[in-house]
Amino acid sequence: MTVIHIDGASGYAAGEVARLVAAHPEFVLGVLASASHPGVPLGDVFPSLQPLGATLATRTALDAAVREGDAVVFAGEAADAGGRVESHLSKGARVVDLSAAFRLRDLGAHRAWYGEPRLQRLNAVAAYGLTELHASAIAAAQLVANPGCYPTAALLALAPLIRSCDGRITNIVIDAKSGVSGAGRTPKPESLYCEVHDGIRPYGVRGHRHAPEIREQLAEIGCRAPFAFLPHVVPLSRGMLASCYVRFAGSAPPDGALEAAYRAAYDRSPLVDVLPLGTLPETRAVARTARAAVGLSRLADDLVVAACAIDNLGKGAAAQAVQNLNVMYGRKEDLGLDAVAAVA
Amino acid sequence: MTVIHIDGASGYAAGEVARLVAAHPEFVLGVLASASHPGVPLGDVFPSLQPLGATLATRTALDAAVREGDAVVFAGEAADAGGRVESHLSKGARVVDLSAAFRLRDLGAHRAWYGEPRLQRLNAVAAYGLTELHASAIAAAQLVANPGCYPTAALLALAPLIRSCDGRITNIVIDAKSGVSGAGRTPKPESLYCEVHDGIRPYGVRGHRHAPEIREQLAEIGCRAPFAFLPHVVPLSRGMLASCYVRFAGSAPPDGALEAAYRAAYDRSPLVDVLPLGTLPETRAVARTARAAVGLSRLADDLVVAACAIDNLGKGAAAQAVQNLNVMYGRKEDLGLDAVAAVA
Amino acid sequence: MTVIHIDGASGYAAGEVARLVAAHPEFVLGVLASASHPGVPLGDVFPSLQPLGATLATRTALDAAVREGDAVVFAGEAADAGGRVESHLSKGARVVDLSAAFRLRDLGAHRAWYGEPRLQRLNAVAAYGLTELHASAIAAAQLVANPGCYPTAALLALAPLIRSCDGRITNIVIDAKSGVSGAGRTPKPESLYCEVHDGIRPYGVRGHRHAPEIREQLAEIGCRAPFAFLPHVVPLSRGMLASCYVRFAGSAPPDGALEAAYRAAYDRSPLVDVLPLGTLPETRAVARTARAAVGLSRLADDLVVAACAIDNLGKGAAAQAVQNLNVMYGRKEDLGLDAVAAVA
Amino acid sequence: MTVIHIDGASGYAAGEVARLVAAHPEFVLGVLASASHPGVPLGDVFPSLQPLGATLATRTALDAAVREGDAVVFAGEAADAGGRVESHLSKGARVVDLSAAFRLRDLGAHRAWYGEPRLQRLNAVAAYGLTELHASAIAAAQLVANPGCYPTAALLALAPLIRSCDGRITNIVIDAKSGVSGAGRTPKPESLYCEVHDGIRPYGVRGHRHAPEIREQLAEIGCRAPFAFLPHVVPLSRGMLASCYVRFAGSAPPDGALEAAYRAAYDRSPLVDVLPLGTLPETRAVARTARAAVGLSRLADDLVVAACAIDNLGKGAAAQAVQNLNVMYGRKEDLGLDAVAAVA
Repeated sequence: MTVIHIDGASGYAAGEVARLVAAHPEFVLGVLASASHPGVPLGDVFPSLQPLGATLATRTALDAAVREGDAVVFAGEAADAGGRVESHLSKGARVVDLSAAFRLRDLGAHRAWYGEPRLQRLNAVAAYGLTELHASAIAAAQLVANPGCYPTAALLALAPLIRSCDGRITNIVIDAKSGVSGAGRTPKPESLYCEVHDGIRPYGVRGHRHAPEIREQLAEIGCRAPFAFLPHVVPLSRGMLASCYVRFAGSAPPDGALEAAYRAAYDRSPLVDVLPLGTLPETRAVARTARAAVGLSRLADDLVVAACAIDNLGKGAAAQAVQNLNVMYGRKEDLGLDAVAAVA
Repeated sequence: MTVIHIDGASGYAAGEVARLVAAHPEFVLGVLASASHPGVPLGDVFPSLQPLGATLATRTALDAAVREGDAVVFAGEAADAGGRVESHLSKGARVVDLSAAFRLRDLGAHRAWYGEPRLQRLNAVAAYGLTELHASAIAAAQLVANPGCYPTAALLALAPLIRSCDGRITNIVIDAKSGVSGAGRTPKPESLYCEVHDGIRPYGVRGHRHAPEIREQLAEIGCRAPFAFLPHVVPLSRGMLASCYVRFAGSAPPDGALEAAYRAAYDRSPLVDVLPLGTLPETRAVARTARAAVGLSRLADDLVVAACAIDNLGKGAAAQAVQNLNVMYGRKEDLGLDAVAAVA
Repeated sequence: MTVIHIDGASGYAAGEVARLVAAHPEFVLGVLASASHPGVPLGDVFPSLQPLGATLATRTALDAAVREGDAVVFAGEAADAGGRVESHLSKGARVVDLSAAFRLRDLGAHRAWYGEPRLQRLNAVAAYGLTELHASAIAAAQLVANPGCYPTAALLALAPLIRSCDGRITNIVIDAKSGVSGAGRTPKPESLYCEVHDGIRPYGVRGHRHAPEIREQLAEIGCRAPFAFLPHVVPLSRGMLASCYVRFAGSAPPDGALEAAYRAAYDRSPLVDVLPLGTLPETRAVARTARAAVGLSRLADDLVVAACAIDNLGKGAAAQAVQNLNVMYGRKEDLGLDAVAAVA
Repeated sequence: MTVIHIDGASGYAAGEVARLVAAHPEFVLGVLASASHPGVPLGDVFPSLQPLGATLATRTALDAAVREGDAVVFAGEAADAGGRVESHLSKGARVVDLSAAFRLRDLGAHRAWYGEPRLQRLNAVAAYGLTELHASAIAAAQLVANPGCYPTAALLALAPLIRSCDGRITNIVIDAKSGVSGAGRTPKPESLYCEVHDGIRPYGVRGHRHAPEIREQLAEIGCRAPFAFLPHVVPLSRGMLASCYVRFAGSAPPDGALEAAYRAAYDRSPLVDVLPLGTLPETRAVARTARAAVGLSRLADDLVVAACAIDNLGKGAAAQAVQNLNVMYGRKEDLGLDAVAAVA
């Protein structure tokens, strides 16, 4: 059994990590530290987690508990991540960082969105934790930068297409829709029920912190085509759909090649469901799970839409963190994560 | 045209007052003052109100603008109400207070829920603004204490029954369900979309600030039977249902008498719809309107359920404020308020 | 006062027409005919409309009541529209058709989506009722084909851009999101609460009946650039956002020209709100109203996103029908339609 | 491994049984029969269940597959249950019936709500499957009548109180609120998104089929006090709260006794969470799980509210069916059912 600690345990993603680890057959929950709620029963913060019987601890208690071989999931603010992560690494623990602090290698972009990076060398060595694309690096890493939810959905939708098209993509439009849990549990007016309910709201039109992350990762897999990214908040708690419109110079690859590329890409990925060509995924099919559903359809001779549905807190955050822990500790990628979504 | 100012204009109820006054044929919007957002276009706070073209002002600007004969709707915090309301009254303006500062005559209860009353003599003279029950007092008042949403729903459901039953009620249970807009626009964890969505949450089980208000007003109409009040938050933006279970010593009044009592009580009330006996109201029928729908049904020989559906921000707050202004200024009670709810 | 009858009065759009006409200062509700619910009180079908006191009638009763000078809003099925509309026209009534039966001039497209057109000559003469674009034709028309909701949103977003760009648009992607009321009130599994709630669902990926309507109308305003259209159902009752990504050969027009084009286009349109450049609209700002909000932003040198938010039952159906009636009968375009949306 | 077949597999409860059985460590899915959708992939009906790889079969195929020792969950219509259940029993299979066909011993009540009982002797022998109250009978039964969702919530809330109060209860009011999945997957106007969303609707005021079931089971545990039952639909997919107001002749039992009674009653029930006295449960804490949360609070000297939150499709239907199967086949009651709810 590997001990999994959580540093910053009062947010939604952290709560989901706790829930998944508590049910995992080979991981065990260690210390759940919260700077904001030390001493508070976990069930007071998350009523659904009351049966876990856990209590939030101080960061000091966490620091005293971390041992070599343990893992720490950091789920605090990016601005806090540097010192905390370094401390955990120095004890021989491996770290999955949910905070975005180590996702970008482009430090200029990091500065623009997250401030001065505290530990630039870690940005250079952290493995980018999109499990399906980087399993080897993740397996070997001490520090995994867990991806953002939008990059997860966009990259899973786009990667096989990019790899199969010989650089003939001329541009990409990513129109993404997300539930509001991605905005976190810190009270903000725009996250209030009455501000989200019964409405559709585009946002980030002048820029979004996930855009440079998508750019860097698209380049990583060989795509330097320009892309536009526009996110929208829609009234659901959990769920995200990235509808990616990919324009080709000349004809898009033939249907058979498209389908084959996706099937081959995710053949060994137990948590990615590839839909038949012409079918696009809906988010309810993956809600509250670790799964992603990917589909694509030709809209014109030179235009393909590739879409990916995930749960933004599941595959888009907490479940992918646990999936990465599985890979880091040599377990089956989907161990403890194979649940399918409820029918309603 | 009567000028209606708003003191404390950045909350939901205030926004709705502004919307209703702007469309009113005989009222005109005066100064919209906001201590928290002075200088901000109203449309930046409430995108739907952008067409009104208004800008939030300072309280100083409001104070300079108030004239004898004007009205001020106070929609700030109860703790602030004292000084502000006194200042407006001193200029000869009439005031409708949404803050609860002047609803309770029982100063002990006031202290328990709202702190030390600042202007106790105003608590003694304010008219309680449940329009259907107190129109004469409201017409004559300089200061109207606009009722809470739960008391509005409970009293409209219960008043005719109480008045027709000769004191034979032995006890009352008020099980109330509310949308979350009643909790206001100040960010709080329990008002977040992810904390309200897809759940039912009882609250206030150890006491709720509206309970003494209901008690005082029930006594006012002659009922001293014990009652229990339990509110629940359900996932909607606007809407409230009070299901009131009324137990009698011996048989409840016969059906014909029950129905007659309700029809008579609300015969001249254009904004109250009385449903046929045996039919209970649903909130969607009154959403975003000034209307109340009342229905009742006999559940046992000695037990009647009387239910009232309102929009908690409409008849439960802003629309009732405008209804009271209509009465105060000699207009038809439902002038500018006769809209019916959308079909979806 | 002009008498407005409704032929097919048990659906959501018809209910909204009834609500708007009942409150209109110069229109009066005539006969509300329903083949499926004759004799049923309107309030039994739509509880919110109970205060209107109307009862659904037979089509026979409607036929007996229609007089020259009256208007009929046809809100039944497209397959039924032919005979019914012809009958109303033959009596000298003017007709606004909500059913799609007369929107398409391309009869091949009509056949593919709606079956054999029954009255092809009416398809040739019906005015396309997008009020802002075709007011003169609407004013003169006996028969107005009320637009689909998606075409309304897409065309309001795109028209000024198309007209200002000298044919340099190379392609357009319309990613649209809609609430579920557009699917109507006939029970279908995919419209159930449990199938819509908490999810995002792309649909119509192999074709949607509104695509040929958009194509025909884009051509009408001079745009033959290829476009892709992908609609998504999101969990709200009423609201629609069309996010239109417009790619240019070379640079898009400069910011000042873009903004000027939109301001000029809608300068005299009281129901269209043009947002400042760089701001995109949200649907809550226009919910349950006749309004449209339009915004645009440059995403790249050669890429502009133009977005339009409407209420799919409001400006997207019923309110636009009443707006067209205003134009047809010489009233101010927004008479009875100037309400702004509630703040929550 | 015990084989679990499902007879009537296209409804929500059946889908959830399939999901739970597929993940169960000692049960295996047998034939999923659907009279309405034979030959259809399960994933086409329930997209979330696509990873199960199952296909719906005919009832004939099911009949050919049932073996002695297998179990069948009947999830069709009550009117169909008689013949189908008898056939399965005759092959030596054990049956859990979700249809209500065998819940009532009072055949008069059965006739009133479900029609003439087809197999009256089975009504007499079926074990009532409220696991926490009837585990011994369930363990021994060939046929288990799975309880209704409202009776499950009401009885779990009330049973310990009734058993601890020496018959001094004078009356009970059960005000229940439910999500809409309980109405099933068959399209009905009142289950449409637009009819449920953003509203609260009391129903069944003239009687509800679950009332006689509650009555019979309350009597079974020794309570013949009159009770009133009023259900309400609120806008959520899954979740139910029964707020039960219990009036005593004289004082209710003291706090310590109340709390002790509940703790003792559910001490050995791994799926029931008893909250501290004075805390009432919310439904989100048990959503999509097999759990029930129970809390109580004294509202007056002679009045206690006891509340129970369940997921109406979980503990209120499918998960309780699997819990009963665990008991019937000698497994640990919560085997495969110990998941806790997601944090959002």
